[in-house]
Amino acid sequence: MRVQTQGRDFRTVWAEGLPAAPVVRMIDQTRLPFEFVVHEAPDVNATSEAIRDMTVRGAGAIGAAAAFGMAQGFSELNPLGARRQLEATRPTAQNLFYATKRVFEAAERSQSPVRTAWEEAQQVADEDADACRRIGEYGAELIPDNGVVVTHCNAGWLAFVDWGSALSPVYVAHRAGRKVKVFADETRPRQQGGRLTAWELHNEGIEHEISPDTGIVDLLKYVKVDLVIVGADRIAENGDTANKIGTHMVALAAREFGVPFYVAAPTSTIDLDKKSGQEIPIESRSDEEVQYITGQTEDGRIERVLVVNPGSPARNRGFDVTPAHLITGGIITQNGIIRPKAEDIQAVKLSRQQDFVK
Amino acid sequence: MRVQTQGRDFRTVWAEGLPAAPVVRMIDQTRLPFEFVVHEAPDVNATSEAIRDMTVRGAGAIGAAAAFGMAQGFSELNPLGARRQLEATRPTAQNLFYATKRVFEAAERSQSPVRTAWEEAQQVADEDADACRRIGEYGAELIPDNGVVVTHCNAGWLAFVDWGSALSPVYVAHRAGRKVKVFADETRPRQQGGRLTAWELHNEGIEHEISPDTGIVDLLKYVKVDLVIVGADRIAENGDTANKIGTHMVALAAREFGVPFYVAAPTSTIDLDKKSGQEIPIESRSDEEVQYITGQTEDGRIERVLVVNPGSPARNRGFDVTPAHLITGGIITQNGIIRPKAEDIQAVKLSRQQDFVK
Repeated sequence: MRVQTQGRDFRTVWAEGLPAAPVVRMIDQTRLPFEFVVHEAPDVNATSEAIRDMTVRGAGAIGAAAAFGMAQGFSELNPLGARRQLEATRPTAQNLFYATKRVFEAAERSQSPVRTAWEEAQQVADEDADACRRIGEYGAELIPDNGVVVTHCNAGWLAFVDWGSALSPVYVAHRAGRKVKVFADETRPRQQGGRLTAWELHNEGIEHEISPDTGIVDLLKYVKVDLVIVGADRIAENGDTANKIGTHMVALAAREFGVPFYVAAPTSTIDLDKKSGQEIPIESRSDEEVQYITGQTEDGRIERVLVVNPGSPARNRGFDVTPAHLITGGIITQNGIIRPKAEDIQAVKLSRQQDFVK
Repeated sequence: MRVQTQGRDFRTVWAEGLPAAPVVRMIDQTRLPFEFVVHEAPDVNATSEAIRDMTVRGAGAIGAAAAFGMAQGFSELNPLGARRQLEATRPTAQNLFYATKRVFEAAERSQSPVRTAWEEAQQVADEDADACRRIGEYGAELIPDNGVVVTHCNAGWLAFVDWGSALSPVYVAHRAGRKVKVFADETRPRQQGGRLTAWELHNEGIEHEISPDTGIVDLLKYVKVDLVIVGADRIAENGDTANKIGTHMVALAAREFGVPFYVAAPTSTIDLDKKSGQEIPIESRSDEEVQYITGQTEDGRIERVLVVNPGSPARNRGFDVTPAHLITGGIITQNGIIRPKAEDIQAVKLSRQQDFVK
């Protein structure tokens, strides 16, 4: 990703100091868009905490952070404890469980588990970036010149190691010279659309507008939108997809106004152990995420302010499950665009083909 | 309405100092829920500005403020200019046009236009409060003991002179001894649900939870909700209803999960000159309402903070139009509960019967 204020490219999460003094570094997403700060997690405790408090968030970025955290667990000679700790942070995120399992099993089988753990973790991160780039290439075919895309939450650079899932097609189309406009749902309560998606598009120089979540019907009804693309936190075998709260609502609105609805995700997000969305655990988060908002004052200070009636409780479920039948466009993976049907999902998950054919 | 911190009852907007020194007073809704302040509008300029900047907002409250503002126009011997100024403030609000027309025409016909204007304005306010109480009585019949109601935006005390439209049935049911729980959609960008509806319910001692707008599908899918009730800013002859942005989305979700969807409004909100919702003008408002939020810091200061990526533009349409076929429950008026059909709407609008029968 290109971070204009830094004048250079970054990944969202990476490891440094190997092998002597390994440390996990990540862009602090709680401080964007107001401050660009690299957060340092020197041990698995710190990495777990960074995942839990959403310093790092987004399917692939959580996966890579968990992979590096798992390697830290081997460096700290406590792999089982580290795995338990990491897996207790964000229950809905499939990439987290995929990453800890993969690093854990590779290191367990190895003669030099610490080295193997770090190598495997790096592999998880590299594959994520590579898969996202390929998602972009498949997805870009769907975006015409002067295309208009609606997205929810943030499934861009910051949600993965690089490129993103839902936004990767936008970046690939843009870099191929096509004009694209994106409407970013604000995505309360944590406003990843208004903060992170808008920040990314601004850095990339792509025309965009932030839309309050309440505006989705008005947007799809009155603006000529070519397609909706969202990310995924977990895809069940039947195609039901858990993603940021509000995604199901966007899908209902898209069906109502005949706008194709796509999910974009690497196959690491698919969980064949879950037959349908009903089996996907949904995370409940603190009331305070709804009650308080952190923002920037006119004189540049960062302040946390109460924005609702003092003392009123709030409901705060992190995700909802969009049923497969509302994913009217398809699922964009690194191996091709598939229908949200069990046979396609099994095949794409198990395939290692570069070009899985629809 | 009962304002606990003040230890007494209030109306949302009222006139004082008649006839010598008339002034329009109103609860400053931009400072709730953090501060309870009565705003004073000494002339029609100030009243127009208070309507435009949403110091006073909500269908009936705008109507009463505009009625008093129209009377100020007669006191200031500039009724035509006053009417033009008032009618330029909020284009979607039917009650505003209803009120200015009614006061203007009554005063124009009178031998003592100033006195008549103030009397007619007071009549508009009193009828609003009375109609809302009767809406509550009809609507309360729909709410069982231990009932659960979802509402969007604020159509309570503060949106009218008293009682409210969507919340009036809740208040009547509660005062009749029934246990009721309300889920209040936050309603970005101005958060009238999280701020004003929650403030009202808290003052009345009614159990409630604030739900981010993104949570509507999750809420209607997993919580046993008895009915959705929302207010209206304008109802066309065919039943299409303009209300706060996001209402159409709530109606789509309610249909999807089989929850009855009701609109509650006095007949002054009906506009028979509009054959369908397509003819209702929709107000676009400033980007800044999406980009900035005002809240309270930990040490009690009120701060306005930027909450999205600096420099990203935002879409901000004030209202959307819910098509009549999604109003699956009906329209609750002061003369009874009707179907969202032209023949019922014409009849209830033209009727002066106390008990219009469904």
